[in-house]
Amino acid sequence: MKKIKNIIVLAGGDSGRFWPLENKFLTQFLGRPFLPQMIDSLIPYSEHIFIVGSKANNRMIKELVKNKVEVIVQDPKVDGMAGAVLSCKDKIKGEAVILNASDLFEFSFLTDFIKKIEETKADYIFLAKKTAHYFPGAYVIFSNNKVQRFVEKPPVDQTPSDILKLVADYFSSFQTFISHLEKTKTINDDHYEQGINTLLLNKPVIEYVLYKGPWYMLKYPWHVLSMMKHFLDGIKVNKLADSKDLTIAETAIIQGPVIMERGVKVGHFAKITGPCYIGEKTTIADYALVRESHIGKNCLIGSSCEVARSYLADNVSLHRNYVGDSVLEDGVLFGSGAVTANFRFDENEVQSIVKEKKVNTNMKKLGVMVGKNTKIGINATLYPGTKIGSNCLIFPGEVVRKDVPDKQ
Amino acid sequence: MKKIKNIIVLAGGDSGRFWPLENKFLTQFLGRPFLPQMIDSLIPYSEHIFIVGSKANNRMIKELVKNKVEVIVQDPKVDGMAGAVLSCKDKIKGEAVILNASDLFEFSFLTDFIKKIEETKADYIFLAKKTAHYFPGAYVIFSNNKVQRFVEKPPVDQTPSDILKLVADYFSSFQTFISHLEKTKTINDDHYEQGINTLLLNKPVIEYVLYKGPWYMLKYPWHVLSMMKHFLDGIKVNKLADSKDLTIAETAIIQGPVIMERGVKVGHFAKITGPCYIGEKTTIADYALVRESHIGKNCLIGSSCEVARSYLADNVSLHRNYVGDSVLEDGVLFGSGAVTANFRFDENEVQSIVKEKKVNTNMKKLGVMVGKNTKIGINATLYPGTKIGSNCLIFPGEVVRKDVPDKQ
Amino acid sequence: MKKIKNIIVLAGGDSGRFWPLENKFLTQFLGRPFLPQMIDSLIPYSEHIFIVGSKANNRMIKELVKNKVEVIVQDPKVDGMAGAVLSCKDKIKGEAVILNASDLFEFSFLTDFIKKIEETKADYIFLAKKTAHYFPGAYVIFSNNKVQRFVEKPPVDQTPSDILKLVADYFSSFQTFISHLEKTKTINDDHYEQGINTLLLNKPVIEYVLYKGPWYMLKYPWHVLSMMKHFLDGIKVNKLADSKDLTIAETAIIQGPVIMERGVKVGHFAKITGPCYIGEKTTIADYALVRESHIGKNCLIGSSCEVARSYLADNVSLHRNYVGDSVLEDGVLFGSGAVTANFRFDENEVQSIVKEKKVNTNMKKLGVMVGKNTKIGINATLYPGTKIGSNCLIFPGEVVRKDVPDKQ
Repeated sequence: MKKIKNIIVLAGGDSGRFWPLENKFLTQFLGRPFLPQMIDSLIPYSEHIFIVGSKANNRMIKELVKNKVEVIVQDPKVDGMAGAVLSCKDKIKGEAVILNASDLFEFSFLTDFIKKIEETKADYIFLAKKTAHYFPGAYVIFSNNKVQRFVEKPPVDQTPSDILKLVADYFSSFQTFISHLEKTKTINDDHYEQGINTLLLNKPVIEYVLYKGPWYMLKYPWHVLSMMKHFLDGIKVNKLADSKDLTIAETAIIQGPVIMERGVKVGHFAKITGPCYIGEKTTIADYALVRESHIGKNCLIGSSCEVARSYLADNVSLHRNYVGDSVLEDGVLFGSGAVTANFRFDENEVQSIVKEKKVNTNMKKLGVMVGKNTKIGINATLYPGTKIGSNCLIFPGEVVRKDVPDKQ
Repeated sequence: MKKIKNIIVLAGGDSGRFWPLENKFLTQFLGRPFLPQMIDSLIPYSEHIFIVGSKANNRMIKELVKNKVEVIVQDPKVDGMAGAVLSCKDKIKGEAVILNASDLFEFSFLTDFIKKIEETKADYIFLAKKTAHYFPGAYVIFSNNKVQRFVEKPPVDQTPSDILKLVADYFSSFQTFISHLEKTKTINDDHYEQGINTLLLNKPVIEYVLYKGPWYMLKYPWHVLSMMKHFLDGIKVNKLADSKDLTIAETAIIQGPVIMERGVKVGHFAKITGPCYIGEKTTIADYALVRESHIGKNCLIGSSCEVARSYLADNVSLHRNYVGDSVLEDGVLFGSGAVTANFRFDENEVQSIVKEKKVNTNMKKLGVMVGKNTKIGINATLYPGTKIGSNCLIFPGEVVRKDVPDKQ
Repeated sequence: MKKIKNIIVLAGGDSGRFWPLENKFLTQFLGRPFLPQMIDSLIPYSEHIFIVGSKANNRMIKELVKNKVEVIVQDPKVDGMAGAVLSCKDKIKGEAVILNASDLFEFSFLTDFIKKIEETKADYIFLAKKTAHYFPGAYVIFSNNKVQRFVEKPPVDQTPSDILKLVADYFSSFQTFISHLEKTKTINDDHYEQGINTLLLNKPVIEYVLYKGPWYMLKYPWHVLSMMKHFLDGIKVNKLADSKDLTIAETAIIQGPVIMERGVKVGHFAKITGPCYIGEKTTIADYALVRESHIGKNCLIGSSCEVARSYLADNVSLHRNYVGDSVLEDGVLFGSGAVTANFRFDENEVQSIVKEKKVNTNMKKLGVMVGKNTKIGINATLYPGTKIGSNCLIFPGEVVRKDVPDKQ
């Protein structure tokens, strides 16, 4: 099969909306960070892969992807996606597909791209998705059933169609797109989409592939939960480390599918209901119940805990807590009896304040999101959707009703 | 055996003192409402059974008892028991026994009534109970060892004897009693008892049957617990639905006697200690402990709950709570870590405010009584004897020290 | 082997710094009070044992030690250790070893004393301990490698050596020591040590034994925990009462070594991890987890409790609590969901206020210390290191951040 000459993965954005969680590309799933897993999925479809990182994260990205791909540093003078693309100006020639590093698709859609390229000699191919509900992205404007242009984030009641353009754009000539992008001016943050619109004014051959697979992204911290679910759902059978590297009490119950790494201990009367991922040297103590969750390394899920549909990074320590639909960063500690609420009593979807704006999480069940090394006191009570920064101390018996900023 | 011609069951009272619970006649025990179970107990002893309902509840009563009995609607212009009896004036002739719909006796005492009727041709027979402690009811005044009359709710230190007249009165001629009742005037709420006193002035043949069996009533909401105990104590052996209609984890422990309806699920490490009733499609989740309790349909006794000596109606959802000596109405929800206290630290009997008056529940152990669809937040703390109305939202971490009115 | 003629055990001090716990000599370990166990350890080494008690406690001491030893009542006019010793003036003659009733050593060091006595004919022998950290006791001043004198509680940066004199002093003539003690004047509370210094001015033959074994004392309430650990660590194998006197559910897990007295009940899914001592008629209920703890008689460790590294006296009643690194006196009651915190979030050692002075407990993990018959409400939250007096009522949902005085 033909391979696409260049795939460009944009990873230059900051993780500001991801707070209180940190660098989203480092978020680990099934024991590996997200970004190199994505790169591995792209390798079969491309001759060269480029990642555009920021000044802040390019070293970390190089470390993550080693020598599989070339890392380009985004020129800090031009920001956003357009800036990332323009930073590749002199480095990439010929056809290219542009992807976003925080979007997870079933990348087999690239097979459809390749077919279209071979069959139609298209100048531009995009990935389209039929939407049932409004999504703040680029909508397709059709005219006589033909794609005319895109409009970025139209008002909710003014969507021109039900077809969304995802960020998976093929250009037969990357340099031609660059030249159109350079002459595009906009005062909004839709420079990239307007650049494509400028290209489209020239009447190139346009094709699109309708995408019906799952689509996950890591933009807000709660997105970790849906992406986690995707990875967990991919576990089909138990994958347990060698039994000599596991310590599982004879009364423990493991209802798979579960991945269990080396050094895991499971206590008496503990119960694990899959799909679950349990990282290296993590202990699931006596009477602990873990359901449909993803737990990192060196965690202690203490006695009588219940962890349900939650993502825990490494070195998390719990004791007699209920943690539901929550995301806990490295080193978070919960004292005995601290509890997360995970739905609103008015049964509405949980809201969250991000950069001073209220955002609907579209989730009816959402617990808390807690930053690195924060300690939650005994018998603390955490409201649904609360975000608590890193290094915070929540006092014993405290009720946390709204977001708590980072400390230090 | 002779049957009594008419039994009249008075069910016209409102359930005001039963708040926050609703219609007391609908309270289900062992899968059936209380009232039709009472009627079934009476059928062997009577030719005709009448129920006097109110305007508000007579349709519901008809629905409950179907065509087994005739339902008479109480004239709203005359209230109380006397009003209920007077509403039967033109409908009932001949001998009659009058009972209260919220009193539960061992109705085999009617055999003793029938014997007395046959042996003594008495005009009036009542059911007497020797009391060790004061009870606010009708006391018998004797003179020369013969029953003279009754005094309703005498002051605590002025009881004329230790014999109480229960509401189970036989009149050889119901019409005669009606005529005496009609000519009785009283400004207190003892019209019914004064009517009997008027009848007694005529020196009829009076007999009584001394009752030694159990006596339960549904007047205050905590009475549900003693009546529940009566029904549970009647369960002598396990009665489980067909095993194909049950899902019981192999590690669960069931110490009978327990009634378990179809569709019940019992999780891992759950324990049920009888006597218990578990209604249809109710789930007792992992690590849940249920002791001497009555649980309705479609309930979720979530993981790590403990429910002890409590009555739960249908659709109740708990999670990691302790619910002790409590009554929860349909649709009540407890968030994780919410807890009921069930005794006072001063070791006194629990008091309750009913219609602005303090009432001694005479119970040393009493948890909470919660109305329909009320939601209790995570880590909420509920004082003993607290009554919480329907549709309330108790916030996470809240401490509830006194009664909470209905919402909406 | 030679025996020491007289051993004098000083037990006259009050237990003021032991608050909220009561008489420290009554503290039971492995089913017996501390003091008679100490006496039993001394019997092999001595011809006569004397205990000096106070006016307040001498009857209780007599009761404890029966007729094994002579109890001397301390003259209330002279207080402290010197007062205790002076009270023995006319009662004891010849050689004597003086010990403190609240110090626990491996008393086999007395074998070394006896050897020294026989070999060196020393006038005075003391027990020395090399210290790595400052301890507020009597330090040895050396001159030309010879013992000169002692300085009591020198400032932290002015210790004259790293050798501490423990309270285990041998005098070849008790009467000679008495005469030196009588002529010693001091305005500080170091009368006893200054008395020895006076003796030393006369250039007697001085020897010492370097002690390398464990040393425990009962001065502050948290000392119960280290002494408990000592006793528990001495349990090497399971010692269970006859199986007909125990009720252990088949699903319970007992990981020894555990001492279990008659009448103990262990519920379903309970787990006991040794070393543990479980006193007579104590119940470890369903789902309870007990680890490395010492539990007295007639206790109820209710369902779903976790008790870790804690000392519980008799008649303690818990229910769904976490009690960690804590000491609970007789009759303490915890309501459901009440929880102890046992470490500070700043990771510092826990401090405690004793007689209005801040004392460092030198413990990173320390829960609460609770006096007799105190009741802790449901969902109460107890800060680490908190001392709560006797007969207190902590309200449901209350957060206890500092010490609470006795009530009544």
